[in-house]
Amino acid sequence: MKTYFDCIPCFLRQTLDTARFLGLEDEETGALLNQTLALAQQLDWSLPPPVTGREIHRAIRGMTGDADPYLSRKMDDTSVALKFLPMVEKKVLSSSNPFLDAVRFSIAGNAIDLGAKSYVDTDVENSFNMALTKTVDEKAINNLKRAVSDAESVLFLADNAGEIVFDRPFLEQIGREKVTVAVRGGPVINDATLDDAARSGLTKQFRVISNGSDAPGTWLPDCSKAFVDQFENASLVIAKGQGNYETLNDSTRGIVFLFIAKCPVLSQELGVDQGTYVVRETK
Amino acid sequence: MKTYFDCIPCFLRQTLDTARFLGLEDEETGALLNQTLALAQQLDWSLPPPVTGREIHRAIRGMTGDADPYLSRKMDDTSVALKFLPMVEKKVLSSSNPFLDAVRFSIAGNAIDLGAKSYVDTDVENSFNMALTKTVDEKAINNLKRAVSDAESVLFLADNAGEIVFDRPFLEQIGREKVTVAVRGGPVINDATLDDAARSGLTKQFRVISNGSDAPGTWLPDCSKAFVDQFENASLVIAKGQGNYETLNDSTRGIVFLFIAKCPVLSQELGVDQGTYVVRETK
Repeated sequence: MKTYFDCIPCFLRQTLDTARFLGLEDEETGALLNQTLALAQQLDWSLPPPVTGREIHRAIRGMTGDADPYLSRKMDDTSVALKFLPMVEKKVLSSSNPFLDAVRFSIAGNAIDLGAKSYVDTDVENSFNMALTKTVDEKAINNLKRAVSDAESVLFLADNAGEIVFDRPFLEQIGREKVTVAVRGGPVINDATLDDAARSGLTKQFRVISNGSDAPGTWLPDCSKAFVDQFENASLVIAKGQGNYETLNDSTRGIVFLFIAKCPVLSQELGVDQGTYVVRETK
Repeated sequence: MKTYFDCIPCFLRQTLDTARFLGLEDEETGALLNQTLALAQQLDWSLPPPVTGREIHRAIRGMTGDADPYLSRKMDDTSVALKFLPMVEKKVLSSSNPFLDAVRFSIAGNAIDLGAKSYVDTDVENSFNMALTKTVDEKAINNLKRAVSDAESVLFLADNAGEIVFDRPFLEQIGREKVTVAVRGGPVINDATLDDAARSGLTKQFRVISNGSDAPGTWLPDCSKAFVDQFENASLVIAKGQGNYETLNDSTRGIVFLFIAKCPVLSQELGVDQGTYVVRETK
């Protein structure tokens, strides 16, 4: 997906949200905004928004000297999500359609997104409560179930810390032998890294790999060769979150995207209301 | 009022709104956004937001070669408001408190603001329908009534085209002999100029002067000496709209501000919900 004009005010809002989240002084906040203003002047509109997001958050880490500014929030969200996990697992296992409800919880977890926090309630408990109340495209999820069943290998592109805990029942549905989970190669916003995956209990149960990139999405030119090989060779790719959609929706390979539509531009492009639980395939 | 960090994403949103309103091509829109990005990098945070607004809209007029890009919209709003005027006048004159209801319609007209159109419904009919339904600070309006009665001369700082039609019953309440209406010195967004005042029937009934500036507010360093003299010497100044509040709220002279709180920053500063009908005095 290209960068839209509307992404510009949003990049600045995100920068300001981050400065406030990190409790920066006015001088640092002003400098950070100026950095984003300068980046926005140079951006390549043909590239997806997470490419600019990567630069913004690199600048934030450079300025604060903090390699993982959202660490404490990621740890908190992980810890709260782990408390909810037994309840999520119980609901999925007692469901008449465990695959469907596992997907619902996985999408619900996508609300835990600090990059889009002006658009969604990022609260873990709220994500849990919303999961089974939202309308989803059951036909698309049935198609996904068949695709998973037919696939020899599934590459699962994870999104955020906290969210990846809510992915666990769905990963179990896919099967430990079949699935490989990919996380970001380095900290960016609250996106999950290998450390977050370990804290979430994923690394003990599943193959988890890094994509080698610190973009808040999966921007293949920035990913490691090892990751790109897995991406190209997996029978099926499942990608969580808006950032992965924005960076991969033009891909020529088969990918199923699961996310909550958060931003007004993307929601409009998809023809859905903001907040919709989206299941989409690449054409 | 100083410029807040939150004004930066908003300046960019305003620029984009304007580009779309004017139906600009992508290339022009991108160039305009870049212009605002550059302005935002150089801005003096101690100055009120309309100073930057002036530069943004000068750039738009320069780029489009259109000296009054909102002219057709201003003419439409004026024409629709004039159709509602007899109903407004009837409601005010049949009211048990004509001064109060005239002020209500004057504030209601402040919704016709294309600079803040992401925040308010700018529809003239809707302004008419809202006028008598909103809660207002009646005590403050009673104080204003006394202040008007005590004043030898009242300088009324108008805001937008269309809105100034809804101001007419209030201007009648103040009295034709007492009041002077000031409008912008040149086109900026849909702010009212002398031409708009003439189209609205104001110039036939009231003394109307230009403030000599094309800022979307009343930024005194940019206003004509003749205007500043009137501003300093009037017994009472009444200022309509958020732009006038932003540029004059730190003034040491007595001013009564009437406007709809539109932006989240200002609403928070004032401690009111967005959409509130505000009556405030300088301290």
